Amino acid sequence: MIEGEEEVGSDNLETFVRENTDKLDNDVILISDTGMLANDIPSITTGLRGMSYVEVEITGPNRDLHSGLYGGAVANPINILTKMVASLHDENNRVTIPGFYDKVEELNAAEREQFKQIPFSLENYQNALDIESVYGEKGYSTLERKSIRPTLDVNGIWGGYIGEGAKTVIASKAYAKISMRLVPNQKSEEITKLFMDHFVSIAPKGVTVKVTPHHGGEAYVMHPDGLEFQAASKAYVETFGKAPIPVRDGGSIPIVALFEETLQSKTVLMGFGLDSDAIHSPNEHFGVFNFLKGIETIPHFYKHFTTMHQASQ
Amino acid sequence: MIEGEEEVGSDNLETFVRENTDKLDNDVILISDTGMLANDIPSITTGLRGMSYVEVEITGPNRDLHSGLYGGAVANPINILTKMVASLHDENNRVTIPGFYDKVEELNAAEREQFKQIPFSLENYQNALDIESVYGEKGYSTLERKSIRPTLDVNGIWGGYIGEGAKTVIASKAYAKISMRLVPNQKSEEITKLFMDHFVSIAPKGVTVKVTPHHGGEAYVMHPDGLEFQAASKAYVETFGKAPIPVRDGGSIPIVALFEETLQSKTVLMGFGLDSDAIHSPNEHFGVFNFLKGIETIPHFYKHFTTMHQASQ
Repeated sequence: MIEGEEEVGSDNLETFVRENTDKLDNDVILISDTGMLANDIPSITTGLRGMSYVEVEITGPNRDLHSGLYGGAVANPINILTKMVASLHDENNRVTIPGFYDKVEELNAAEREQFKQIPFSLENYQNALDIESVYGEKGYSTLERKSIRPTLDVNGIWGGYIGEGAKTVIASKAYAKISMRLVPNQKSEEITKLFMDHFVSIAPKGVTVKVTPHHGGEAYVMHPDGLEFQAASKAYVETFGKAPIPVRDGGSIPIVALFEETLQSKTVLMGFGLDSDAIHSPNEHFGVFNFLKGIETIPHFYKHFTTMHQASQ
Repeated sequence: MIEGEEEVGSDNLETFVRENTDKLDNDVILISDTGMLANDIPSITTGLRGMSYVEVEITGPNRDLHSGLYGGAVANPINILTKMVASLHDENNRVTIPGFYDKVEELNAAEREQFKQIPFSLENYQNALDIESVYGEKGYSTLERKSIRPTLDVNGIWGGYIGEGAKTVIASKAYAKISMRLVPNQKSEEITKLFMDHFVSIAPKGVTVKVTPHHGGEAYVMHPDGLEFQAASKAYVETFGKAPIPVRDGGSIPIVALFEETLQSKTVLMGFGLDSDAIHSPNEHFGVFNFLKGIETIPHFYKHFTTMHQASQ
């Protein structure tokens, strides 16, 4: 199955899958849309975050105003938007939406200990991004923040005069696109509703708020002791000479949770990309080594999975 | 003298005025760039706010990032910008920049009482803007907020993905244009410096901040007992049948303070616009009644001022 709408929200995919469950009957699903730790440290993604994506619109006065004549006397939608968005995180960088963390699974000490085993250099990470410091929820490491913890990020913001130079205007409207990455048990629709109710409730008098949901998706977890992971693991051993490390990833592939629900199938995520591929950034790329290694490794998975699956019937 | 650059910051005017003080020698200056309360309530602007206008740029990672892979783990410049901008006002809507109010002249009870005499309907004001409530610094009326109190407004904000639909990106940079309206004694350059120092100081680790000053200007006050106001007052009596009310305005005409400094001249602001003219907004307009009333009234000012000025020599 080939999906061409993934980066624009896969609006038609769910309907297609639900209407074609018979044709999509399968033993296991393989998707290559993830990465691995390094070319000499193969890994398999065993968890994905879900997503809730919303667009907000703040309306103040019914028209753009002169900031001299009205400045200080009416609610400026941009200032209000910054206040409302800023209030969505507390001083520990936790999301303040009531109920947001209610269903978040807290990992136990042993599970968190596994994160420390994953090869990761904070210094290299910071250097690669030219940042002096990482930033995120207090009490969690960088690897945990970007995989097992839910987030709230503004993906776009706009309002007022954005050309060159200065214009003394108070805009009538201000906008933001906001996405929340979700972890297992946080339901996308439920979180979207929590966001909408909260965001409307914190608006001061003098502005009106509209929240429009964009696409969402559920989180996914697979267990490394399952047949799928074990078969994939054998395949990596054949081509990389070592077993892959199970890693929970921060991205979202909503179709994976949908497949599990509608087709009762587990998905194995055999991806060969690297962090340095700059995905969704300028100069996005994919190495020839990785491309060829994927072509070599995947057939071994077919072979091992078929054998193991037949043996288990 | 005709100035064609006023709405783009008058970058060349100051130099021109300083180099041509001899040619610009005068007894009084008249500018028509203000409004009056209503067609049957003539008024003269006796105060203008100054301005400091800056542009800020927040840089986080050196490139746009995928919000799934990095979300929650690095400082998102847009989220940080909203936090920094939001923190510029406290819970009473006062500006939090240290020193911002140090030189602000507080009006005494009698002066503030005068504001209550100005005909003003809060209901009409709110209805005209379609807002449920006004908004501003605690302890001050709407008329005070937009004239004798300094402000800080975001005039534009942008960053990340602002097209249709959803894109899961963490932007490398976020921007805002911010203007502060100033009152007498607050110096534009000084306030710009206070802003820059403060804004840079509140940035968290993980982002860098650049602040670029745009144009500025000083506030201005004239006294209703001066010759200029009295001569103008007589002119209004002749054409409107009643004396004008002195009103302090929230806008900025930086040249007025510059004229006072370089030419040692007072400026009388005889403007005939109305609040409903929607200046700097769509459908900006100027009434024929007001246009003709200005043409009728101004020559009377020349006559009265000349007579009174010669008598005072």
